[in-house]
Order: sequence, then structure tokens, then C-alpha cells
Amino acid sequence: MKADPRLAPVHEVMRRAVAPAGDQRDGLYHWLGYHLGWSTPDGRPADERRAKGVRPLVCMLASRAVGGDDTAAVPAAAAIELTHEFSLIHDDIEDGDRTRRGRAALWTLTGMPHGINSGDALFGIARSQLALSPVAPDVLADLYARYDDACIRLAEGQYLDLSFETADYVTVDDYVDMVSRKTGALLAAAAGLGARAGGASPDVADGLARYGLALGVAFQIKDDVLGLWGDPERTGKPVGSDIQRRKKSLPVVAALADPELGPRLLDLYSGPDPTPDDARRAAEAMERAGVRESAIAIAEDFGATAKAELESRALADGPRAELAELVRRVMQRDN
Amino acid sequence: MKADPRLAPVHEVMRRAVAPAGDQRDGLYHWLGYHLGWSTPDGRPADERRAKGVRPLVCMLASRAVGGDDTAAVPAAAAIELTHEFSLIHDDIEDGDRTRRGRAALWTLTGMPHGINSGDALFGIARSQLALSPVAPDVLADLYARYDDACIRLAEGQYLDLSFETADYVTVDDYVDMVSRKTGALLAAAAGLGARAGGASPDVADGLARYGLALGVAFQIKDDVLGLWGDPERTGKPVGSDIQRRKKSLPVVAALADPELGPRLLDLYSGPDPTPDDARRAAEAMERAGVRESAIAIAEDFGATAKAELESRALADGPRAELAELVRRVMQRDN
Repeated sequence: MKADPRLAPVHEVMRRAVAPAGDQRDGLYHWLGYHLGWSTPDGRPADERRAKGVRPLVCMLASRAVGGDDTAAVPAAAAIELTHEFSLIHDDIEDGDRTRRGRAALWTLTGMPHGINSGDALFGIARSQLALSPVAPDVLADLYARYDDACIRLAEGQYLDLSFETADYVTVDDYVDMVSRKTGALLAAAAGLGARAGGASPDVADGLARYGLALGVAFQIKDDVLGLWGDPERTGKPVGSDIQRRKKSLPVVAALADPELGPRLLDLYSGPDPTPDDARRAAEAMERAGVRESAIAIAEDFGATAKAELESRALADGPRAELAELVRRVMQRDN
Repeated sequence: MKADPRLAPVHEVMRRAVAPAGDQRDGLYHWLGYHLGWSTPDGRPADERRAKGVRPLVCMLASRAVGGDDTAAVPAAAAIELTHEFSLIHDDIEDGDRTRRGRAALWTLTGMPHGINSGDALFGIARSQLALSPVAPDVLADLYARYDDACIRLAEGQYLDLSFETADYVTVDDYVDMVSRKTGALLAAAAGLGARAGGASPDVADGLARYGLALGVAFQIKDDVLGLWGDPERTGKPVGSDIQRRKKSLPVVAALADPELGPRLLDLYSGPDPTPDDARRAAEAMERAGVRESAIAIAEDFGATAKAELESRALADGPRAELAELVRRVMQRDN
């Protein structure tokens, strides 16, 4: 999923939103520009932006799918993408991750206090972009409401994800609820806001939001599968890498409930750091027990739900096909 | 400034906004309730809320001052107060402060990762309250725009405050710009949103927002003066306590620019931790040099600006007098 050239106007709005003002606040905006891949740590221009842009693409395609023009969804797409980027700044601090997209995570350059605050600044900037939407005030109010709801769900999802790390017992339903919020909510908002900005009724927007939600859940489960059984040459990570990091991803949650695999995996998760060999062996045992297959089946169910939402309503053929193609690409991606 | 009984409906909205839903997300809402003073760390009900409620009071008085009814500004007042509370959750982590209003700071109970995320959740919840405002969609759009602008300024102010800690040289103008954002912006939003929700034109709301901004700056400078020369029996802190914490408050910024005091104070700030005696002696030297007097004069200038904004336009007499009284109380408070 390379950045789509149609996202250029979204990136333009993002650049304007985070432009330094030429005064004592500039350091903050330079940091945000670094996080977004626009500059090097010492402030020289760069073009290292590696985000795939799935969220803004869904937002713009949803607008086109309901007959909206190209520009209607641009501010909403920028707001959603900047919100995703804000959440990454905080996630990296919360998870202690020192790298992001192959570069130093922002907080490792700024220190933790400025890292938290830079995220807060980007969150505020992100939301303020919605006001640029070329829509009537009552539609704008709906964009704000959908957006705010997504932000609350996003934080609830991160609460659950962090809590699962230390939870004794997590069910597959708990897990799906978590990723529906953590990954699904912003993709649902991308589709729902795009549709509303493009002129859709709340009802049609709700349908496209369900598409986005299901796409997000499918995406995350596929990510979990790649985190355990991805081809090391494609993902750049060894087999079982998520086990080494003790992640409670969907396959792990499913395996922990298995009477055979569960106790062994629990031992691995509660003992000293799993070695690469431990992790690889556990991933292999899980695969033999059918855990990989059943995780893929769950992801495919969500992919099918996403596609069904597209087919159940009158949408423009071209954008509808592209939205369906996104589901296919999510299911087939190998890194 | 004890909580005003007229704030009861605001607290009601806040309680509903942060109510647990009865599912796996509840831990998050219990933590937020703890931070807000509604429960003990182990979840038993408490009534320890010690916030003074200046922001929501300004918001509601601004609405009444322009002829709005009692309920119009309630959602905006709740949004502003919850936003202030979100910022305190993150400030405590950023500053490493382990207590807040005499209780354990939230992050010391939850750990840093959940602390950051709890703040993010409260930020999203805060903003979503604006949607409850009983106003026309075009006014609602203006509330969102003013609110988002204030949130960006708030984060810019915190950026500057954190940056000043390590800056070689800070001017009084730099400092005023910082507190205008860090303390002024939310009070400006409180007044501006209250006025708009109460039916004021954007122009009248801008005037009341300038009142709020000036009140916020005066409040912060008075806070700085109390942090150096407050009566220990009233503030609970020794004379010069802000110097022990190496805070670059307004009097310190002014003293650092003084050819006589500056070098001595700089030594104190760049050496090992100042002792209580060092701090007291420095505060006394600053007072003899007239720094206290000039800081109070600057605060009084901002207080006068706030009052002038009230007098320059047609407002209802009762609320106008109360808004003016708030300025007087800020200038005369001793803890």
C-alpha cells in the first residue's frame, strides 16, 4: 500500500496545519514535522514519510462513493490522519518503543515530557482541521460528533490493549472489542466522515462506517498473524516475534484458551523473556494446532462483513470497487 | 474561591460524561473518577473534589452577562473544566509530580502508560460535551473552533513552559506569551464559549475572551508571587519554594535580567539543588530589589485590562459585577 497520489491535497492540508509560525513556538512544530517524516532530527527537509495513508484514502473514497467531489473530504481526511499520528506519538512512549518507521521515535529526541505534550498539540491541531470542511453547519456538527466518538473509542482501545498485557484471562470477544476501538474506530470515522462530507445521509454514512470498522479489525488480525508467522524476509522480523514481545495478539488469546497449548504458552508469558527459539517453537506449535488458520478465518469474516456493507447500498461503482480492493489487499498483504 | 453552588449542573454533566458503562472499559472510567475527586483509589465513593471551578464559573457568568439563560453554557463549562483536568493529568507526568490536591497523582496509581492514555481519554470526552450545547449549528461550529484554538494554545504554552526550564535566556514578553497560552487560553475560551452559547455575537464574545485571557495571566503572575513570597502559614510552602524547584516564574525571569541579581540567581539555578535557606535568601534579595513590587504591578495591569473589557460593552449588571469581583479576588488571594 504505497501512498496514493490522490492524497496530495490531504498532505498539503497537513503541512499547513503543522507549519512553524516563525516565533518561540517553532521548536514544537519542527518536532511534529520530524514525526511526520518531513524533516531530519536537526531540522533539514526530508521526504521520509512512510505512512501508507489507508485512513485518508478510505475517507476520500467514501466521499466519492456517495457522489461527493474530490475536495469535500480533504479536511476530514487530514484530521483523521493527524489523529492517527498523534496516537502513534503517545503509543511509542507508552510502549517504550524507541523507533518508529525505521527512525528514532519522537520522544527519544525530545524527552518524555515534551513527547507527551507534542502528542497533545498534534491532537488539538488534528481536530481543528475539521472546521475547514466545505459543508453546511449541521453536517459539520455531525462530523465533529463522529470524530469525537472515535477519539474516545481510540483511547478506550488503548486502555484495553495496555490492560490485556497484565490480565490473567482475555477472551476472543474481549480482543475483538479492543481492536474495534483501537484500530477500528478511526477507520470507521474515516469512512463515516468522508461519506457525510461527500453529502451522504447519516444512515448511508453509518453503513460505510461499519465497512471501515470491519476493515480495521481485519487489518489488525492480519497484522497479528504476520507478527507470528510472517515471512521473515518480507516482515523483517523473526517468526514468533510478537511472542518475544509478550503481545496478547488474537492468536495468542485463542491459544491461551486451548487446553493443550494454553498452559505451555502461559508459562512462556509469565517466565523470563522468551528466547527467539522459544518464540519460534511456540509459533510452530500454535500453527500445528490450527490457531493460524482460525485467526485467518476470523479476519476473513470481518473482511466479508466489510465487503457486504459496500454491496448493500447504492454507491458509485469505481470508488466502491476501490474500497473492496482495499479489503482484498489487507487480506493478502505479506508485510 | 470555594466551588459555587451554581456549578451543580456542570458537575452533573461531568459525572455523566465520565460514568462507567458496566463493561471491560470500566477501569479507565474509575481512574478518571478518582482523578476528578469522586472516588478513592480503591473505587469507593468520595467527595474530595477540590478544584475551585473558576473556569466553569467564568463560562456561566459570561453567558448570563450577555442575557443567556442558566443552561446554555453548561455543556461548554463542563468541556472546559474537563479539558483543564486532562491537562493536569499530563502535567503531573511531565513534571514528575507525585501529588495533586493532597492526593496521589493519577499516574502514580496507574503507571505512566495508562496515565498518558487516561489523559487522552479525558481530552476526547471533554470535547464531546460541546455537542450537548443547546445552540444553533452555526453557533456550535463557532464553539468548536474557539475550543480547538484554545487546546492548541494550551499545548503551545506547555511547550514553552517546559522549554524555559532549560533555556539560557527568557524575557518578560516570552513569559507573558507562555502564560497567555498555558493559563490564559482556557480562561479565554471559558468566557468566549459562555458568551457565544448565551447568544452573544462573535465580537462581544471576543471581548469577553480578552477578559478571560487577562484574568488568566493576572492569576498566574499572582500565583508566581505567592510561590516566592506567600505567607508560609497560608500557602503551606516555605518562602522561596519556587526557587527550590528552579521554576522560571515571572519574578525569576525579571530578576535574571537584573545586572545585580541576575548573575547570583543564575549561579543558584545552574548549581546543585538550592537549599531552603538559599531560596529564602534569594527571595528576600529579590524583594529588596523591587522585583516583587514590579511583578504585582504587572499582574495589576492585566487585572485592569480584564476589568476594562467588562466595562467597554453592554453587559447585564449582576454578572458583570461578579466577573469584576473575580478579578479582585485573584489579585487579593493569599493562597
